[in-house]
Amino acid sequence: MPKKNSLTDSTLFMMFSYKGYLIRKLSSDLLWITIPSTILCAIHEYKHLDIGMNFSLPGLMGAILGILLVFRNNTAYDRWWEARKVLGGLVNTSRNFALQVNSMVPDGKIKDELQNLIGAFPYALKEHLREGVVFSDFSFIGDAMTEKLKSWDHIPVAINNLIQERLKMVLNSGGITDFQFLKLIENSDELIDIMGKCERIKNTPMPESHTYLLKVYIWVYAIIIPFGLIDTLGWWTILAVVMVYYVAMSIVTISEEIEEPFGIDPNDLPVDKICNTIYNNIQEVKTKSTPYSNYNNV
Amino acid sequence: MPKKNSLTDSTLFMMFSYKGYLIRKLSSDLLWITIPSTILCAIHEYKHLDIGMNFSLPGLMGAILGILLVFRNNTAYDRWWEARKVLGGLVNTSRNFALQVNSMVPDGKIKDELQNLIGAFPYALKEHLREGVVFSDFSFIGDAMTEKLKSWDHIPVAINNLIQERLKMVLNSGGITDFQFLKLIENSDELIDIMGKCERIKNTPMPESHTYLLKVYIWVYAIIIPFGLIDTLGWWTILAVVMVYYVAMSIVTISEEIEEPFGIDPNDLPVDKICNTIYNNIQEVKTKSTPYSNYNNV
Amino acid sequence: MPKKNSLTDSTLFMMFSYKGYLIRKLSSDLLWITIPSTILCAIHEYKHLDIGMNFSLPGLMGAILGILLVFRNNTAYDRWWEARKVLGGLVNTSRNFALQVNSMVPDGKIKDELQNLIGAFPYALKEHLREGVVFSDFSFIGDAMTEKLKSWDHIPVAINNLIQERLKMVLNSGGITDFQFLKLIENSDELIDIMGKCERIKNTPMPESHTYLLKVYIWVYAIIIPFGLIDTLGWWTILAVVMVYYVAMSIVTISEEIEEPFGIDPNDLPVDKICNTIYNNIQEVKTKSTPYSNYNNV
Amino acid sequence: MPKKNSLTDSTLFMMFSYKGYLIRKLSSDLLWITIPSTILCAIHEYKHLDIGMNFSLPGLMGAILGILLVFRNNTAYDRWWEARKVLGGLVNTSRNFALQVNSMVPDGKIKDELQNLIGAFPYALKEHLREGVVFSDFSFIGDAMTEKLKSWDHIPVAINNLIQERLKMVLNSGGITDFQFLKLIENSDELIDIMGKCERIKNTPMPESHTYLLKVYIWVYAIIIPFGLIDTLGWWTILAVVMVYYVAMSIVTISEEIEEPFGIDPNDLPVDKICNTIYNNIQEVKTKSTPYSNYNNV
Amino acid sequence: MPKKNSLTDSTLFMMFSYKGYLIRKLSSDLLWITIPSTILCAIHEYKHLDIGMNFSLPGLMGAILGILLVFRNNTAYDRWWEARKVLGGLVNTSRNFALQVNSMVPDGKIKDELQNLIGAFPYALKEHLREGVVFSDFSFIGDAMTEKLKSWDHIPVAINNLIQERLKMVLNSGGITDFQFLKLIENSDELIDIMGKCERIKNTPMPESHTYLLKVYIWVYAIIIPFGLIDTLGWWTILAVVMVYYVAMSIVTISEEIEEPFGIDPNDLPVDKICNTIYNNIQEVKTKSTPYSNYNNV
Repeated sequence: MPKKNSLTDSTLFMMFSYKGYLIRKLSSDLLWITIPSTILCAIHEYKHLDIGMNFSLPGLMGAILGILLVFRNNTAYDRWWEARKVLGGLVNTSRNFALQVNSMVPDGKIKDELQNLIGAFPYALKEHLREGVVFSDFSFIGDAMTEKLKSWDHIPVAINNLIQERLKMVLNSGGITDFQFLKLIENSDELIDIMGKCERIKNTPMPESHTYLLKVYIWVYAIIIPFGLIDTLGWWTILAVVMVYYVAMSIVTISEEIEEPFGIDPNDLPVDKICNTIYNNIQEVKTKSTPYSNYNNV
Repeated sequence: MPKKNSLTDSTLFMMFSYKGYLIRKLSSDLLWITIPSTILCAIHEYKHLDIGMNFSLPGLMGAILGILLVFRNNTAYDRWWEARKVLGGLVNTSRNFALQVNSMVPDGKIKDELQNLIGAFPYALKEHLREGVVFSDFSFIGDAMTEKLKSWDHIPVAINNLIQERLKMVLNSGGITDFQFLKLIENSDELIDIMGKCERIKNTPMPESHTYLLKVYIWVYAIIIPFGLIDTLGWWTILAVVMVYYVAMSIVTISEEIEEPFGIDPNDLPVDKICNTIYNNIQEVKTKSTPYSNYNNV
Repeated sequence: MPKKNSLTDSTLFMMFSYKGYLIRKLSSDLLWITIPSTILCAIHEYKHLDIGMNFSLPGLMGAILGILLVFRNNTAYDRWWEARKVLGGLVNTSRNFALQVNSMVPDGKIKDELQNLIGAFPYALKEHLREGVVFSDFSFIGDAMTEKLKSWDHIPVAINNLIQERLKMVLNSGGITDFQFLKLIENSDELIDIMGKCERIKNTPMPESHTYLLKVYIWVYAIIIPFGLIDTLGWWTILAVVMVYYVAMSIVTISEEIEEPFGIDPNDLPVDKICNTIYNNIQEVKTKSTPYSNYNNV
Repeated sequence: MPKKNSLTDSTLFMMFSYKGYLIRKLSSDLLWITIPSTILCAIHEYKHLDIGMNFSLPGLMGAILGILLVFRNNTAYDRWWEARKVLGGLVNTSRNFALQVNSMVPDGKIKDELQNLIGAFPYALKEHLREGVVFSDFSFIGDAMTEKLKSWDHIPVAINNLIQERLKMVLNSGGITDFQFLKLIENSDELIDIMGKCERIKNTPMPESHTYLLKVYIWVYAIIIPFGLIDTLGWWTILAVVMVYYVAMSIVTISEEIEEPFGIDPNDLPVDKICNTIYNNIQEVKTKSTPYSNYNNV
Repeated sequence: MPKKNSLTDSTLFMMFSYKGYLIRKLSSDLLWITIPSTILCAIHEYKHLDIGMNFSLPGLMGAILGILLVFRNNTAYDRWWEARKVLGGLVNTSRNFALQVNSMVPDGKIKDELQNLIGAFPYALKEHLREGVVFSDFSFIGDAMTEKLKSWDHIPVAINNLIQERLKMVLNSGGITDFQFLKLIENSDELIDIMGKCERIKNTPMPESHTYLLKVYIWVYAIIIPFGLIDTLGWWTILAVVMVYYVAMSIVTISEEIEEPFGIDPNDLPVDKICNTIYNNIQEVKTKSTPYSNYNNV
């Protein structure tokens, strides 16, 4: 299903209406970067000094710049897409967990608590990856449970601890068999894995040398490229420098945004929406499925 | 097994007979894009203004354009191929599930319902990914079951809920052992996973900045490139611009089509055919296998 | 272990002795493609019309062509390698299955049938992916079993159905425990998965737009490139066009061959050999292992 | 969440304050590499010998250099990222293991020992990958246990041996069921897998030919490139050579650093911090969870 | 931990001391390849024929050559790295297997045999991938066992058969439970998988067309490039051709070496060392762990 492709009703529109998103972000840099090229153009045009050189060096450097940009862009996107897969796994595991608890665990207070805890985990994880868990996000687990969680530092681990304890209790009371217990525990393992993957993506920035090298390189390149263009472009050199700098830094900026995808930037993943989806799915399973006590009436 | 390669009987034919697919799609854009270059050519040819520049800037910009196009193309294809793998997994899991239900679950009404539900899941998933489940696609599950499903918002989850409930019922009635129950439940888990992966691919568009940046860039490029070509190409510049724009936008257009592969565009995956294949496989297992009651006559 | 590298005793030899494989395949195309460039050269040389242009446009187009060729080549190779992995998995799963049946299932008619069916599966799958199952390939399963299979449309699924039924029979007769049954069933699941992956690779051609776009592009390129070369190369232009076309179409042709790797083209996978290997491994396990009845004499 | 992007307050600052990290590392090389180009410039400028050539050869060689650099950079990064994933897996597995031991194993001395051993494993692994295990890192396991470990050569394997023995003891004493035993053993398996992956990354340097070829190539390139630039750049050639060499060797140097990520270089992974995180998580589970004896009071 | 980077004490040294490894390998080719360019240079310099052309064709061809070289290099490396991962998996699985046998199987002759067979498997696999199993490598399994193996064609499969038989015997004698049996069998499955992956990598050369096309292309390129360089380089053309050919063929040669990594070439994997590591780990587990009979004294 192709999105709007027509140049006239879409691309042009986007260009001027996309709230100048990237342009605003890069505007102060763009201003600074015109200074050296403007000086150069002035010298070239008014003093008639022969400061141009042929295009071979900028061409060569452009190739290396391309290599660095491709690498930056791809690794950032890979990280973003991996994060999306992990969140997709969170949806799947939560649904599976909820369906299995529903069909295996006998009705009662513990079943309720389990379903609430499964629904609370995504909310806790989400804010754990941002600035600290917001307990009001999942007040549906009840005050008693909330109090228990508050004594922990690592809330998502705490939730899994409560889940596993409750599963052990159901096992001890004979509500589930040993195998069902292990099957259900596996879902909790999976939630821990997902949490760990999110933390890894969040806490592992790109190697600092890489980001450092690329930014320095773009900056140096923006200084050197006018020498290669001024003979043929004259005053237009300034525009050319601005354009090259803009595109290169756009890629860097977008990369920096999407490689930490759990935040609330325009390009970040719809984490809040995913949490709500999970909660709604669990609620639906809870309220619309056949009552557990009817399973024996075959 | 190479497909038709001969230029004469295949490529040429395709070019003129492929219903002008891409050309029709891009025609209005192509018209618009000729305007600036035509004006430029007219100025250059009639007014003899020296507006050309050497090719270094367009060359440099072309390299960056290449980077962006490669990225766009590869990510779209990866998504398409991942979607195909997920659908392949749907086929495999459904077959496995049907074979296992066939050999493990005792004959009876529940076995029938299970096999119907397994066959219905792909149809429900397919339309869930489009515009909403079409219940007549899988009327073979019977009206009673259809009614139960209609009370749910998320039909594919509902189907899995019905499957898991039925498995629990067979377990409670002693038809299968605890281990067989878990083995069968795993297939249902797998179906949920597959559904979640499809939803992820469907609901996660490329980061908007990326698609925005690329389209703006192609547009700007089509404005700038004539300055670099006009000195050597003259009026032919218009053709060159059209060609470059056509190829670049072809890649963008194809990418947009294939990255949402569950629809009904020419390049989308054969989802309907896959659903029918699964249904036929299940029917064959159901009708042609050895009756369950004969298993003890070894 | 490097293969023959020496230019003198290997590459040169290959070039002239490799049965002109690719050259024969592309020869009619190569003939056609020389026509426009020959006409162009004739006009240029005899009429002295200035139809050349500088190399910037062909250079730019060459870069985009490169992008498309890389993509075509890599996706085809990935598919080929994935197919090889899947076939490798077939070998592994069959060996595992045979070894486990050997050590777990009590001697008798059913054990024999199981081992024969495991050995028959690769042969059935192989021709199922080509033009239809050849029953004489695996006549060792006996006529009775062959008859049973013939009533099915999808023979590989039928074989797995027979396997799972037999495993259930052994379970019912007490020959294996419930867990051993599940362990053995998992091998059958794995065979179904492998079959599904093969079918996916076989039945999913590249998106038609991609292959269409690339061929048109190569063709257009072969028309345009002479204009950029004729000033410097003269009559040699024809040779240059032929060479560029040959290399580009070689990549396309090889890609088309290897991306459907289950056939019998020179570059296809050694499917028949793999089937025989599996059969021989199973036979060896069957005939050379310790008799099952000796397992208790520890 | 974009990091600081502004050229003025960040990039410039980094450039001069990043402790001249890469520049210091490469300084002696940079000195050496200026010698040939300086001699060349002197000859060219003072003797007026026509030693320049056009840029085609350096351009061609630059393309091949780019290929080698991309390859070097990507493989190093892939290794670094794989190492990060493995360490993330270590966090996940340790947490899972601790949670499961907590909910399954009855309180007592062995439970304590198990939790200590799980916490000790990351510390032992970390130094095993460096220069030898430092027992004081995990003195919390107690002197008796430390003594047992000291008699082994491969400490991380020894820790897993102690874990598995303890699990078997709990099984024999009836504290856990057979299935719980197997579930817990799987975590130990997983730790062994993680250890093996770390050892693989650590002990498998890039193929020596690759690193050799690339360094020779950069060196040769730095000799040849002045011939292509001297006509247009004059004395500036020296600066150009230094810049090209600096960027190329930066990529090589960063690659060498990050491809062995378990050390303590600036770009290495935060291994020590990860060990502490695991230890703290385990401590929290140990001290804040519901006492095991309360599980039956449902 | 960066390796030696300094140009002065490392790269230069490597260049002249690395035993002329690649140069020796390619020397006869390099000789041959100078002939056409020498003839060309002689004609150009002495006869003053204008046989040069501009650099556009070689430049274009160089781009396509780059594509082919990147592909060759990456696929070879991927295969090498996959092989390394598989061997890493062999280490992990063997350790896991040894640890589990140690803690689960009661002491006795069969336990001993099992541990020996696990240690023997890597040695058998290693030579199976080369020229045939060398039984003296693993004489520690005893003569009786060796005799049994000698009657088989596929020794690694035979070893797994012996392992599985022994596991079944321990099960029959009540030494392990059914679940422990299945857990142990899974390790044997894993060894079979690893073996199959090694065989796949070993037995699947690159598609012949690819390697053929690349070598022909490099050869043709070495013929054509002098025409593009001779005008500017004169006699230096010969050096340029030699360098381009050397670098291109170096990549091909290294690729051919590393893509079959189980041999004993300088760049092959340290297979023998890995086998010894596994053997030593198993010995350590065998000799230093707590005696099995002590497990009940909790």
